[in-house]
Amino acid sequence: MKKTILVAGGDLRYGYAAQALAEKFDVFAVGLARQSLSEKIRLIESPAEIPTCDILILPMPVSDDGVLVNAPFSQNNLSLNFLTAKLKSDGLAFGGKFGKAQKLFDEANIETIDYLAREEMSTRNAVPTAEGAVQLMLEEMPRTIYGSRILILGFGRIGKYLAPLLYAMGADVTVAARDVVKRAQAEMTGCKSIAFTELESYAGEFDVICNTVPAQVITENILEKISPDALILDLASRPGGVDWEAAQTLGKRVVWALSLPGKTAPVTAGEIIATTILHILEERGADYA
Amino acid sequence: MKKTILVAGGDLRYGYAAQALAEKFDVFAVGLARQSLSEKIRLIESPAEIPTCDILILPMPVSDDGVLVNAPFSQNNLSLNFLTAKLKSDGLAFGGKFGKAQKLFDEANIETIDYLAREEMSTRNAVPTAEGAVQLMLEEMPRTIYGSRILILGFGRIGKYLAPLLYAMGADVTVAARDVVKRAQAEMTGCKSIAFTELESYAGEFDVICNTVPAQVITENILEKISPDALILDLASRPGGVDWEAAQTLGKRVVWALSLPGKTAPVTAGEIIATTILHILEERGADYA
Amino acid sequence: MKKTILVAGGDLRYGYAAQALAEKFDVFAVGLARQSLSEKIRLIESPAEIPTCDILILPMPVSDDGVLVNAPFSQNNLSLNFLTAKLKSDGLAFGGKFGKAQKLFDEANIETIDYLAREEMSTRNAVPTAEGAVQLMLEEMPRTIYGSRILILGFGRIGKYLAPLLYAMGADVTVAARDVVKRAQAEMTGCKSIAFTELESYAGEFDVICNTVPAQVITENILEKISPDALILDLASRPGGVDWEAAQTLGKRVVWALSLPGKTAPVTAGEIIATTILHILEERGADYA
Amino acid sequence: MKKTILVAGGDLRYGYAAQALAEKFDVFAVGLARQSLSEKIRLIESPAEIPTCDILILPMPVSDDGVLVNAPFSQNNLSLNFLTAKLKSDGLAFGGKFGKAQKLFDEANIETIDYLAREEMSTRNAVPTAEGAVQLMLEEMPRTIYGSRILILGFGRIGKYLAPLLYAMGADVTVAARDVVKRAQAEMTGCKSIAFTELESYAGEFDVICNTVPAQVITENILEKISPDALILDLASRPGGVDWEAAQTLGKRVVWALSLPGKTAPVTAGEIIATTILHILEERGADYA
Repeated sequence: MKKTILVAGGDLRYGYAAQALAEKFDVFAVGLARQSLSEKIRLIESPAEIPTCDILILPMPVSDDGVLVNAPFSQNNLSLNFLTAKLKSDGLAFGGKFGKAQKLFDEANIETIDYLAREEMSTRNAVPTAEGAVQLMLEEMPRTIYGSRILILGFGRIGKYLAPLLYAMGADVTVAARDVVKRAQAEMTGCKSIAFTELESYAGEFDVICNTVPAQVITENILEKISPDALILDLASRPGGVDWEAAQTLGKRVVWALSLPGKTAPVTAGEIIATTILHILEERGADYA
Repeated sequence: MKKTILVAGGDLRYGYAAQALAEKFDVFAVGLARQSLSEKIRLIESPAEIPTCDILILPMPVSDDGVLVNAPFSQNNLSLNFLTAKLKSDGLAFGGKFGKAQKLFDEANIETIDYLAREEMSTRNAVPTAEGAVQLMLEEMPRTIYGSRILILGFGRIGKYLAPLLYAMGADVTVAARDVVKRAQAEMTGCKSIAFTELESYAGEFDVICNTVPAQVITENILEKISPDALILDLASRPGGVDWEAAQTLGKRVVWALSLPGKTAPVTAGEIIATTILHILEERGADYA
Repeated sequence: MKKTILVAGGDLRYGYAAQALAEKFDVFAVGLARQSLSEKIRLIESPAEIPTCDILILPMPVSDDGVLVNAPFSQNNLSLNFLTAKLKSDGLAFGGKFGKAQKLFDEANIETIDYLAREEMSTRNAVPTAEGAVQLMLEEMPRTIYGSRILILGFGRIGKYLAPLLYAMGADVTVAARDVVKRAQAEMTGCKSIAFTELESYAGEFDVICNTVPAQVITENILEKISPDALILDLASRPGGVDWEAAQTLGKRVVWALSLPGKTAPVTAGEIIATTILHILEERGADYA
Repeated sequence: MKKTILVAGGDLRYGYAAQALAEKFDVFAVGLARQSLSEKIRLIESPAEIPTCDILILPMPVSDDGVLVNAPFSQNNLSLNFLTAKLKSDGLAFGGKFGKAQKLFDEANIETIDYLAREEMSTRNAVPTAEGAVQLMLEEMPRTIYGSRILILGFGRIGKYLAPLLYAMGADVTVAARDVVKRAQAEMTGCKSIAFTELESYAGEFDVICNTVPAQVITENILEKISPDALILDLASRPGGVDWEAAQTLGKRVVWALSLPGKTAPVTAGEIIATTILHILEERGADYA
């Protein structure tokens, strides 16, 4: 018999995740926008009609206060307590960062799985993030990516996808990385590479500087060298990689782009959530596959 | 001695074109926005100060009425008669479509050259056009280009650049072309290909349909087959490739994108105008090079 | 009813062509190697058993003397007269360059079609030719293509496929072309470009020089400038693009690679012959499709 | 003052490595072929003339017996004892696997560094290895890589470079990897992916099967499914990834390609050795840089 899944709360992505999961499971949704759902999924309007489920899927973050589900599209409050009561005793609760809500699940003796902690998810999210960065470059720059001199700071998940993508688009790409192995890998995708210690002397030669490192690497010294026409794109999560105060004083053009997957490609981002959850279930064996 | 060039009128591109030309010539500008010009170029505020020049560069189209230069950034009217009087007797006038203005140059016995008629220019403009199309796909689609099923109608200058670009971005690209040689070329860039006669049977399988053919190829029959979620992007010049009435009745999402180079990448578009003019001058030999 | 095809003579490619055609037609073969044929195709051992056919497929060139089919794998002589007698009165004879044999077909009132004259065929053959060139570079050079400085002379069918292929492999590619439009196209695939007039001054900077132009473009002057370690690869048909005498005197390393498709990828080359013939038949309408 | 380096023994690669190092150091060579050396390097014919050096570079493996240097191009025996005596007391000895020779260096109180153990070196060697694999595919397959269905087993250093390279060449590439993150990464380069558990059911669908996993993954069960025309290419080091006995019994075509970098691209392989050593020296600080 097919397992039943309840997707509760979240933004547009969760509707698309629900749709992707509906190919293998019976899926119910609560607290989601009708527009992101197909007929395959029953959208429950009244919490009272929520059926008993095998798997509960919660958004990222699960909850702000540890009591109510984070559900911007819902007209009613959705309490976590109410939802856990609908989960079978051997059920699973998926969510992206449980935080304060963890305690409630522990007390109810419900197993929780943080899909955000799964490397597969952050790996796949590099695609919508990199495409979001490309979109911002196209929107903000008065020149084509083809022929532009672009510096990427960092060669982690995002850099590894973004650098060869921009190379394929005809850009002249340089990657700055601390590790000599990462610099070798960057060169092997067709890009040039520099060490972070060389940043100051090269900073003036780029049309776009795109940071992916979650540490303040674009300091005042470096900002001073960056061309006045250059675009600085910061993809790093809080606190970001740019000395904002210095950037403002120096009049540099900085765009800080957070959470690109959900904003630029909610369908793909939802499918990535679904794929990640499916793979976790498959690894748990026959009961869930 | 360096030749002198006068760039008169036009949009942002012409400021960037003037800048690119200033590397080899003495360049004056009139009727252009200050913001697009560097110090290398003297912006003439009062028409009376216009010096005698070897080469005159006019915008596209040169003029709407055959009397005044097309100069949206100019506060004063710029008359063609006034400008031709500043040109040396053996001078050259460049422009993009002279139209009604041609007569005036013929009467003044001034040689005119239409850079728009030059194949190099339309060839190079495929880059900003294709990047503009990528930008629209990123903005309008809720999914990544990676993994999307994209149909390109036509395999001329734009298609030949756009198809491998989207393939390199990880899209599943199909090209529709009438000519079997063009279909072979499209396949050789990693794409699939279909004949136009197969359009109706395949039209339902795409997330994006991007037309580059300047003829109504997306007829009502084909529109009916296109998926309701699909984005139709029309890059073809007037009258475009879509049966608009049928598209509206059927509620299809169509974006008609004209003149992308100037809108999305004025710097690059200006450099392309400059490069084209430089190459024309080089071909004319030592006097101009 | 399925049309019948007789494939007569030719090298390995014709066996693979016969196989590809057997998906749509009843195919017989005569004068071909058993090894290149599957069970789907009846290999006729004795000419007497040849059935009456709708379509006759002959090799390239069709015949050396205008009397016997060019059939290196055949133990018996195959006379053209004998084969035409087996063709229906409204039959078609395909071949690659009929030459002296044309007269015989004209007299027998049989329509002939030269598939070699078809642009689709030379277009598709650029793939096996370019891969053959890559193979030679890998075999002959003591360094990787990645990082090598490669000059391609000409930007026709082969250059247009080879240049972006080598760029994708990480080479630093320069294209020499006379036409400014071709140079623009080359730049748009990520390569650099030079005019032929600049050849002499740049010739010393490359690890590989690959000619595709069927005219003597690598003259003594240019050979003198080429680095002693460089590999010169000539893909042009007779008389080739290199001044051989000068090359020998100067001790330059030149490899002249002719007919690469048949040598390096006979299966693909055979499939290209079959595809081309199929498309010709389709264009002739329902009778042959 | 420039440091002095002595390169002793080794194959062709070490001559090219010596040349690359000569841009920054005074380099002497002993036991190497003259052909691989430029004038910048002094080839010492008689061991007695060896000068005192700061750095000694030994081949891979350093020695077979722990007494003599591995020096196939040398006419005289080169004893390790003799060489260490020429090294300054604070000198460094580089080598690729010291093995039995380690003891001798320990007793002489000389610091040894194994460059083979450095990740940068194996990372960069993926380029000549992958190009060697491409060469073998081009030589051994009667069809083009374009359009071929290629399976790569493993997505480590080699697979990560080889898979997108083959995709860029127009192949239909599938990657088999155990880890779901590696499968996601493979998909992000444009390839398909399967788990190793699916190998048996898909094995019959490929023209080329290329193994990079150093464990017997191509078992009899899988060999039975592989198409008789398919090429099996094993890039894994001893004991390799193929059940050879079964492969022979089943008549499968297997090519086992070891040490590709040195064989197919000795110049590049030598430069990689030099780059790796340079980076190690740079990290040790001002004394060596």
